[in-house]
Amino acid sequence: MSHPHPELTTPGPLPQGALRIIPLGGLGEVGRNMTVFEYDGRLLIVDCGVLFPEENHPGVDLILPDFDAIRGRLDAVEALVLTHGHEDHIGATPYLLREREDIPLVGSELTLALLSSKLREHRLKETAQHVVREGDRIAFGPFDLEFVAVNHSIPDALAVAIRTGAGLVLHTGDFKMDQLPMDGRITDLRAFARLGEEGVDLFMTDSTNAEVPGFTTAEKNIAPVLDRVFHQSNQRLIVACFASHVHRVQQVLDAAVSHGRKVAYVGRSMVRNMAIAKELGYLHVPAGVLVDAKELAELPPEQQVLISTGSQGEPLSALSRIAQRNHNFVHIEEGDTVVLASSLIPGNENAVYRVINGLSRWGATVVHKGNALVHVSGHASAGELLYCYNIVRPRNVLPVHGEIRHMRANAELARETGVPAEHVVIAEDGFVVDLVDGKAQVAGKVPCGYVFVDGSSVGDITESDLKDRRILGEEGFISVIVVVDSQTGKVVGGPEIHARGFAEDDSVFDEIKPDIIAALDRLLGERVDDNHQLQQAVRRVIGRWVSNTHRRRPMIIPVVIEA
Amino acid sequence: MSHPHPELTTPGPLPQGALRIIPLGGLGEVGRNMTVFEYDGRLLIVDCGVLFPEENHPGVDLILPDFDAIRGRLDAVEALVLTHGHEDHIGATPYLLREREDIPLVGSELTLALLSSKLREHRLKETAQHVVREGDRIAFGPFDLEFVAVNHSIPDALAVAIRTGAGLVLHTGDFKMDQLPMDGRITDLRAFARLGEEGVDLFMTDSTNAEVPGFTTAEKNIAPVLDRVFHQSNQRLIVACFASHVHRVQQVLDAAVSHGRKVAYVGRSMVRNMAIAKELGYLHVPAGVLVDAKELAELPPEQQVLISTGSQGEPLSALSRIAQRNHNFVHIEEGDTVVLASSLIPGNENAVYRVINGLSRWGATVVHKGNALVHVSGHASAGELLYCYNIVRPRNVLPVHGEIRHMRANAELARETGVPAEHVVIAEDGFVVDLVDGKAQVAGKVPCGYVFVDGSSVGDITESDLKDRRILGEEGFISVIVVVDSQTGKVVGGPEIHARGFAEDDSVFDEIKPDIIAALDRLLGERVDDNHQLQQAVRRVIGRWVSNTHRRRPMIIPVVIEA
Repeated sequence: MSHPHPELTTPGPLPQGALRIIPLGGLGEVGRNMTVFEYDGRLLIVDCGVLFPEENHPGVDLILPDFDAIRGRLDAVEALVLTHGHEDHIGATPYLLREREDIPLVGSELTLALLSSKLREHRLKETAQHVVREGDRIAFGPFDLEFVAVNHSIPDALAVAIRTGAGLVLHTGDFKMDQLPMDGRITDLRAFARLGEEGVDLFMTDSTNAEVPGFTTAEKNIAPVLDRVFHQSNQRLIVACFASHVHRVQQVLDAAVSHGRKVAYVGRSMVRNMAIAKELGYLHVPAGVLVDAKELAELPPEQQVLISTGSQGEPLSALSRIAQRNHNFVHIEEGDTVVLASSLIPGNENAVYRVINGLSRWGATVVHKGNALVHVSGHASAGELLYCYNIVRPRNVLPVHGEIRHMRANAELARETGVPAEHVVIAEDGFVVDLVDGKAQVAGKVPCGYVFVDGSSVGDITESDLKDRRILGEEGFISVIVVVDSQTGKVVGGPEIHARGFAEDDSVFDEIKPDIIAALDRLLGERVDDNHQLQQAVRRVIGRWVSNTHRRRPMIIPVVIEA
Repeated sequence: MSHPHPELTTPGPLPQGALRIIPLGGLGEVGRNMTVFEYDGRLLIVDCGVLFPEENHPGVDLILPDFDAIRGRLDAVEALVLTHGHEDHIGATPYLLREREDIPLVGSELTLALLSSKLREHRLKETAQHVVREGDRIAFGPFDLEFVAVNHSIPDALAVAIRTGAGLVLHTGDFKMDQLPMDGRITDLRAFARLGEEGVDLFMTDSTNAEVPGFTTAEKNIAPVLDRVFHQSNQRLIVACFASHVHRVQQVLDAAVSHGRKVAYVGRSMVRNMAIAKELGYLHVPAGVLVDAKELAELPPEQQVLISTGSQGEPLSALSRIAQRNHNFVHIEEGDTVVLASSLIPGNENAVYRVINGLSRWGATVVHKGNALVHVSGHASAGELLYCYNIVRPRNVLPVHGEIRHMRANAELARETGVPAEHVVIAEDGFVVDLVDGKAQVAGKVPCGYVFVDGSSVGDITESDLKDRRILGEEGFISVIVVVDSQTGKVVGGPEIHARGFAEDDSVFDEIKPDIIAALDRLLGERVDDNHQLQQAVRRVIGRWVSNTHRRRPMIIPVVIEA
């Protein structure tokens, strides 16, 4: 299995009749999925999602794919295909549309409805939208697209087959193969088989669960567990899940109806998404079951069900506030039951356990995936991927959607089903893969860094700023200000020393002030008036002192100001 | 089950003949275990460990128990009993000994040997040490102690039975009930039974795994898995595990011998602890198998085994450096195998996955608890705890060692075996539990905050400093310096504006400088010369500007300096 290393360089020009694949996100991380296809000078984009920052991206709101590789060629983009409505597949679209507003958007009904609501929030115009459904075939420039139903943890997900002169590519998007899904809409293996018979030249497959042996449990298997939880509870019930998981919410609604309870949504995104899903007919809300949250609070506890966001322990979410008994109208009580009907995204463990501990402290029973089957994954496990490889029998495989460990596991599955190792390409973000004469291989690499969104700025925050933030966040800073008379070259003010995140009263610095003045006087006496040199002298004195006295390394900000 | 809430106040005086239990750590978190027993004016301490900080304690090195509750009474301490040699049970001892150097230390041979090595690092004198072993009975003041063998993930762990006039307390320490342990030293249920027959008035039991159903797998079951991994590997093998896990290292040594490989240790704590364990006879190193790391590097890869630290993804550990191909003499190659023979402590997931992804990138096979039985826990699962409750049949139960969710699950197990709910006490750090006339109950609460070690300072860093660090770490800061002539009351220097972690060139602030000067001039014109008011004015101008232009809230440090 080919996994070339970072000495790759910018690829040469694309050979006539070849297809170039440029993954700009999602190959090396779970999130910011985006792939560019290039054929005959024209571009097709599949997905444009965000990545949620982890602890080494302090203060960052979102991480976007790096559009640099196509920035000069946005006019050549024929369409943006969105495989489903999750944030990690659609969330960066507004940022791309800011750069070219009229890129045609292609996706299923629910996907585009969720996207529209996002575009409105960003105050972007509704651009050309092409609603497609499984079985549809539609061409954008040289890209002849066919859509295939796939099952995932959000309704209406699509795989896409892309035909060009270079051959047939099948991109699964995120998918699994629940054989008895809530909506009866299964991953269409008959279509996979038909495409396989035609000959799939490149199969791009979801790697997320490739390390997980066996088969992903069916969504429906949660129902009896929810039923038991509802049966055992004689007080308030709170169910937290992802705000886009229509089928999970459906199951909670159904359980509420059969146990004679009413339901209210808590959390802005839950309210918004479920309204869309209901309006389009993806969510079936039995008459009378849904009430407004304040109305619900007036009912006896044994008739209440809250469906809320906050399943990842987000500190500002309703659930976190409930766990701290800090919520407007939901006051958790001994005997209440809280169900976390969701995955636990790596990195969120401590936050989620804080919520569970908080709820436990007040005597609530907490049901979560660690102690009951209240969550199933949205991704195909190894067993399902093997079925796919055996049905499609692709010529080449490019694992997508996952960290390196996931992609390697996926590649290994392809190999085990008989795809020759030299036809299984492991690529990371920015690796350029060319499909030439029926063979896929890495042709080079383009820059593909993380683009950070922070407040209203996009791409201004760099790794170096994050490094500063990490130092500031771990060690705090000491700032030393000295005023020098520009005429006399004498210190006339300060040193004033201020520290934050450093823990000592600022008077602790009094002992080092004479040394700072002495160091400056010495330099000024030598007629050194270069501000940078003076600052460095201050930095050295205070840095040495703090290291000796405190064994710490705060950021030191020396300021020599002339007045 | 009683779990009183924070409105508790300082407890009244201890009734004559009663025993008071003051948990100063470990009840509400996994770590910094420390419990104080008070009887007849005298004190006994069991364990004195550290807690490792998580992401909301930025820059903190260690967290200690809060000694405040006993600070004025250290002379009354009869002894400090250490149940086993893990950091979360012994690590804070040097800090306690700094406050009273000659507290008698009581523990098993290995526990005290590991502690001695720690005291030497802290340059503390070796104080009175009492080596005890299972079956020993020894009194310290009014506390009559009996030690009971327990099995854990480090050899030579002890439970302790404490007899006073108030009754018999049995404290398990950390334990599990491996029935076929490597060293044949099982948790002594015959002693538990005998104590139970005598009558255990209070049973303090390890809660860590109380949420885990069933039984903890035996350590020995790892051997066949290691054997298979060794058998399948024909290149270098690296096994990472905790540096105190003598039996895990023993199994790796044994596998190395049977597969004709040599072993070297990597990581300072691994080298140090295994030397101690070998010298005392807890680790059996077959002749010739152990070589020095540089010597090992000269051998053919198929003869190499490295046993290293870094199993939690610690960024500076050997394993992290290997994963980044940044290690002095270990260069990871396609086909190498790395075994993470350890748990994954919550909060470390991203760091560990970074290491796994790094190793995978170079083509190493990574074996970990997610895909093979290469780790078993050191703590009793629910099934084992039920055995204990049924054998001991305690009058009262106080779950210890765990977060609230663990302690509540443990309490529930006690209740299920027939301990009346009103005799199961759920307490958190600082809750004072009195055993009076055979009944344990919460008598009040003493302050028991986190004590942060940062560099050479202990307890100087407060929650407010951490809040500053969190803001600095997420948002960075903007500092604005203005020099005012103290004679004329005019702005004569600045504003100089410096930002860090904020992402923009400092010239972005030029546009706001006139507004700052105008605001100051206005105040100075009104003869306002209170420095604080001037600073607030500067803060308001720049704060409003940055919020409008950037939608962010960096820390703002206004400095008005007189010259």
